[in-house]
Amino acid sequence: MAYDKDAVRNILATAKEQGRTALTAPEGKLVCDAYGIAVPGEGLAKSAAEAVELAGRIGFPVVMKIVSPDILHKTEAGGVLVGLDDARKVEQGYQTILDNAKRYNAKADIVGVQVQKMIGGGQEVIIGAVTDPSFGKLVAFGLGGVLVEVLKDITFRMAPASEQDALGMLDGIAAAQVLKGVRGAEPVDRAALANMIQRVSQLVTDFPEIAELDLNPVFASPNGAIAADVRIVLDHAPQPQRYRPTQEQIVAQMNRIMRPDTVAVIGASSEDGKIGNSVMKNLINGGYQGKIYPIHPKAEEIMGMTAYKSVLDVPGEIDVAVFAIPAKLVAQALEEVGRKGIPGAVLIPSGFAETGNVEGQEEIVAIARKHNIRLMGPNIYGFYYTPKNLCATFCTPYDVKGKAALSSQSGGIGMAIIGFSRSARMGVSAIVGLGNKSDIDEDDLLTFFEQDDETEIIAQHCEDLKDGRAFAEAARRVSKVKPVVVLKAGRTSLGARAASSHTGALAGDDRIYEDVFKQCGVIRARSLRDLLEFARGIPKLPTPKGENVVIITGAGGSGVLLSDACVDNGLSLMTMPEDLDAAFRKFIPPFGAAGNPVDITGGEPPTTYRNTIKLGLEDPRIHAIILGYWHTIITPPMVFAKLVVEVKEEMAAKGIEKPIVASLAGDVQVEEAAEYLYQHGVPAYAYSTEIPVAVLGAKYKWARGAGKI
Amino acid sequence: MAYDKDAVRNILATAKEQGRTALTAPEGKLVCDAYGIAVPGEGLAKSAAEAVELAGRIGFPVVMKIVSPDILHKTEAGGVLVGLDDARKVEQGYQTILDNAKRYNAKADIVGVQVQKMIGGGQEVIIGAVTDPSFGKLVAFGLGGVLVEVLKDITFRMAPASEQDALGMLDGIAAAQVLKGVRGAEPVDRAALANMIQRVSQLVTDFPEIAELDLNPVFASPNGAIAADVRIVLDHAPQPQRYRPTQEQIVAQMNRIMRPDTVAVIGASSEDGKIGNSVMKNLINGGYQGKIYPIHPKAEEIMGMTAYKSVLDVPGEIDVAVFAIPAKLVAQALEEVGRKGIPGAVLIPSGFAETGNVEGQEEIVAIARKHNIRLMGPNIYGFYYTPKNLCATFCTPYDVKGKAALSSQSGGIGMAIIGFSRSARMGVSAIVGLGNKSDIDEDDLLTFFEQDDETEIIAQHCEDLKDGRAFAEAARRVSKVKPVVVLKAGRTSLGARAASSHTGALAGDDRIYEDVFKQCGVIRARSLRDLLEFARGIPKLPTPKGENVVIITGAGGSGVLLSDACVDNGLSLMTMPEDLDAAFRKFIPPFGAAGNPVDITGGEPPTTYRNTIKLGLEDPRIHAIILGYWHTIITPPMVFAKLVVEVKEEMAAKGIEKPIVASLAGDVQVEEAAEYLYQHGVPAYAYSTEIPVAVLGAKYKWARGAGKI
Repeated sequence: MAYDKDAVRNILATAKEQGRTALTAPEGKLVCDAYGIAVPGEGLAKSAAEAVELAGRIGFPVVMKIVSPDILHKTEAGGVLVGLDDARKVEQGYQTILDNAKRYNAKADIVGVQVQKMIGGGQEVIIGAVTDPSFGKLVAFGLGGVLVEVLKDITFRMAPASEQDALGMLDGIAAAQVLKGVRGAEPVDRAALANMIQRVSQLVTDFPEIAELDLNPVFASPNGAIAADVRIVLDHAPQPQRYRPTQEQIVAQMNRIMRPDTVAVIGASSEDGKIGNSVMKNLINGGYQGKIYPIHPKAEEIMGMTAYKSVLDVPGEIDVAVFAIPAKLVAQALEEVGRKGIPGAVLIPSGFAETGNVEGQEEIVAIARKHNIRLMGPNIYGFYYTPKNLCATFCTPYDVKGKAALSSQSGGIGMAIIGFSRSARMGVSAIVGLGNKSDIDEDDLLTFFEQDDETEIIAQHCEDLKDGRAFAEAARRVSKVKPVVVLKAGRTSLGARAASSHTGALAGDDRIYEDVFKQCGVIRARSLRDLLEFARGIPKLPTPKGENVVIITGAGGSGVLLSDACVDNGLSLMTMPEDLDAAFRKFIPPFGAAGNPVDITGGEPPTTYRNTIKLGLEDPRIHAIILGYWHTIITPPMVFAKLVVEVKEEMAAKGIEKPIVASLAGDVQVEEAAEYLYQHGVPAYAYSTEIPVAVLGAKYKWARGAGKI
Repeated sequence: MAYDKDAVRNILATAKEQGRTALTAPEGKLVCDAYGIAVPGEGLAKSAAEAVELAGRIGFPVVMKIVSPDILHKTEAGGVLVGLDDARKVEQGYQTILDNAKRYNAKADIVGVQVQKMIGGGQEVIIGAVTDPSFGKLVAFGLGGVLVEVLKDITFRMAPASEQDALGMLDGIAAAQVLKGVRGAEPVDRAALANMIQRVSQLVTDFPEIAELDLNPVFASPNGAIAADVRIVLDHAPQPQRYRPTQEQIVAQMNRIMRPDTVAVIGASSEDGKIGNSVMKNLINGGYQGKIYPIHPKAEEIMGMTAYKSVLDVPGEIDVAVFAIPAKLVAQALEEVGRKGIPGAVLIPSGFAETGNVEGQEEIVAIARKHNIRLMGPNIYGFYYTPKNLCATFCTPYDVKGKAALSSQSGGIGMAIIGFSRSARMGVSAIVGLGNKSDIDEDDLLTFFEQDDETEIIAQHCEDLKDGRAFAEAARRVSKVKPVVVLKAGRTSLGARAASSHTGALAGDDRIYEDVFKQCGVIRARSLRDLLEFARGIPKLPTPKGENVVIITGAGGSGVLLSDACVDNGLSLMTMPEDLDAAFRKFIPPFGAAGNPVDITGGEPPTTYRNTIKLGLEDPRIHAIILGYWHTIITPPMVFAKLVVEVKEEMAAKGIEKPIVASLAGDVQVEEAAEYLYQHGVPAYAYSTEIPVAVLGAKYKWARGAGKI
């Protein structure tokens, strides 16, 4: 696509010179022309005679609109007339508009009247752009009309939008079916709409001073799309730049912070109950094998280790300094950390922005920038990195090693992560507290875990994203390789943002997070338990190779609920091919139901479970299996659990690996069976038909986003 | 409201005589007139001259429509002309319509042309009625237009609808805001719309042969509502009547079945592994104190009890017979049960309709009807009734007594209920398997539990409701007194029903269940876990006296997630009055946040929790409290749990009882604390911010539906 950037640049420069924050309609038309956005034929008339001449040239009927930098709400000012279908009406109309405009605002500087070809027909849609404080430029798409406004049926993507993004937006609204033609209407030209979305997204990307933009309405027909009205709002103030190191810089520093060979503990203490004592104990008892340097103004030795007055006194390099001193002492110690050339500081202390001490926080950030120190926190519990047996925290040590890396913005949620992980024996590579996020943010963690071989899934709790754009870019890249799960807290509050465009007024925070997460392949957790269960379950499952899911169940009732859960989680129950149906039927009683779910019925022996599960794994047309177990005396819970694992391992030996999840209905013994299954690679849940399917659904979401299926 | 039933009766009789299943438009108009449903002025013209005369009388512009019993799709046939604004056009129009109709169907019997005042303006809505196979007559309301069709934004209520039902429907659609006036439009006349809904619902109630009805569009304006088009589809075949005993009969028989003094076990056995042996063991080991009569063709004695060849041989009355014999023997034994005058049979055996043996099931139902026996099952695990220590089942005994009565249609789900209940130590009054539901259904259980003093909440899993109307009537009555929670499985499948009306085409099964449940005050569980957690938690909570919910949290992060959960569950976070805010602030650190959530911050001692919780309970403006606990050394989990219970009990002694739920974030010790809280009346969950709030939300849903707040 070719764009005439110079033309736009000139128009924006003129507006800026004149101190205007909105473009006139004719300027808007020129901007559209420069970016190949189709708008109706039009021109600017400075007299009634010119208007008549223009209308004759463009063709009747026409629309006439006041052009004045001082009149933004044209309709309100009586500055718009539509359906003028002869010269006489145009002539009169010119005068009417001018009279109305003067009545509305006697001081308005009136440039003239825009005469525009009147268009209509097809489906009215809206294409727009907004500037989000976190994600930057976003392009929007929705249907026109009052219902859409009421139902907020609009979808967003970060700009610039790819063709795939743009086409995805057309399917991203609830009323998507309307575009495909309903009640006998012809489908609209999807390519033309997607193209217009892309051009708008490129325009606002190229010109950050375009704060908001509305094409409203756009008439979409089977033969194209044309924007009947354009509105452009400017913001000439430059956006403040956030400190963003390069990906290489992040990786280099984060590797030293997260996998240090030497750790300094500033405020180390021998005294029980002190945070600096807890940190020392956790480092030592956690089994950390690197060097530990206790830093203390007076002590000679702490817990059997030589203590130093300052990091500056430590011989040799230090990778990371953990701070366990009061807030008021942090700045000076951080200065020393900087002079020592330590790349990272873990700031456990509270007493900064969260208590209103914003200045104190700004001070330490300035010191960090000066010395190129990355800051974790302040106001955090610290972090764990299990491959190094590193517990750089005042909480209790965590020792179940695994591949899930978790982080939380809040300390309370961090404690819940630790408790759940320990209770569920979830294997973890890291748990990180981000607290006030004065510097290190979710995107730094993503970039570190991306290249960390010990991590296979990243699960993050956050309340805000200080730099949503940086997060989204990192997430988009990382999620192609490793699943990224995010619990966005505060999701039900709608951002009350000042907006002077229609699109802006429709942009709720949560809808934007929802859409951007989808655009970036992020799996969104709806609850804390979901975050934790997904982190636990997803790494257990091999990546599915296709969409065909089969339910094999001993309980018909579970089969129905599992089917419900499949629909809820966007999973496709395979339509059973005839031969496969017949093959399943061979193993089950005549009154059992094949099809999908495969209902083997309740009174069956272990062999029936074994045969049907084996068939499900062997047949290449099936890509994932959901098991519904029903506790009976004939096939007790542990017998079931063991046979599932046996069949699974037998198949794995032949190179067949498919995701299997299980729902166990029965007396309390099913809890042990579920645990056994989980520990052997089958996420399994007692008394729940929905959680195992949600875990499988999350795996699928990731696999689709990453292009694996 | 006065209705002219005779007029409608005559019209329907005529249609039936003529073998028609649809009314003509003029007939539809007359039906509307008879029920006071506003329609535009109109008349039937049999010639062009009559049409011109009519139009002159009604007033231009007019709409003209073909009237023919053979042409149902009038527009398709070219049989509709709109906007005819002078006599000449009406005259020509008459001929055009006749020509088109003949081209469309040369054999059509043409009655004439309807001439109708053309109306418009205001908001287009649709009011309709359908006949649901389970719930019977339903009235529907939605907005008109293509988006509504695509978004299926339509709401249903059982007919007849009360005024409150009808007004609730106006708020029951997603686009409800449109009716209140958006973009400067005036709000529509809600009373007029509600009135029309009520009239339609009364019409279809009075005349069951009206199978489907559409008023589409209805033009709703600030000054009233008028139905521009009416379509009525008839079904002259009478609906088969289901066997429905009276409420008194149900109670009398169910009391003997569920709380028997004597139980016969047909197929009792001494042989380990037999179902008849398991049932005997469970009765005895469960501690049942009534008389047990083992029935066996040969045995003299079973497990130390005298055995009988037939129930007919047993001296004295028997309240219930539990069947543990193969399907093929059931009919004969049931005949004997009938002759003995036993009011209930619990049919454990499978091998009936669920295996295709529909005839066998019909046979036993016929026997039951003949002898007035109520049947539970067949194809069930039996049932538990703990106040009588009664385990009439082949599963293991259940002994944690309490006030929750659960039932399941599926055996597998029943086993999950038993397992969960035991694991969570949920106090249960009854667990009942309904299986094939050949007779006893959810509504019978509701009617029994309604008057059962040992039951305070009823939680049911069902896949279908064979008689939704009976269920709804019972649920509506019972839910005023005791919470009714239902997990409707199969909820994601949309009913593919044949429908010749617009309303019918929009009626998905799940939407109907959703709306009817709401109408009846039923709390809908979205998942198996929800069903179980609600059954466990709701009876623990006192009924709230108002909508003001306050969150008190030690973890800011939990506060945010708990707030999200409040929105998700329809709870209102109280706007904190200034004086109360000040009162809370006295107890919390200066950097803590009052307002709501009350964030007491993480490092606080037990007294801070105690003081704030006490204040929350004492202040009468607060009606419910959600606690967010953060595990710290200063206030360990059990210290927190105990202080909460202490404060709660201290307040209860003063007569102050409010619902309290808790979310615990911390290391594994929080699990014990949560358990302690739960056992002391505070539903509490580790590692979850959403479940405790969902439980509170469910309690609120019930309290609102039952008119308690």
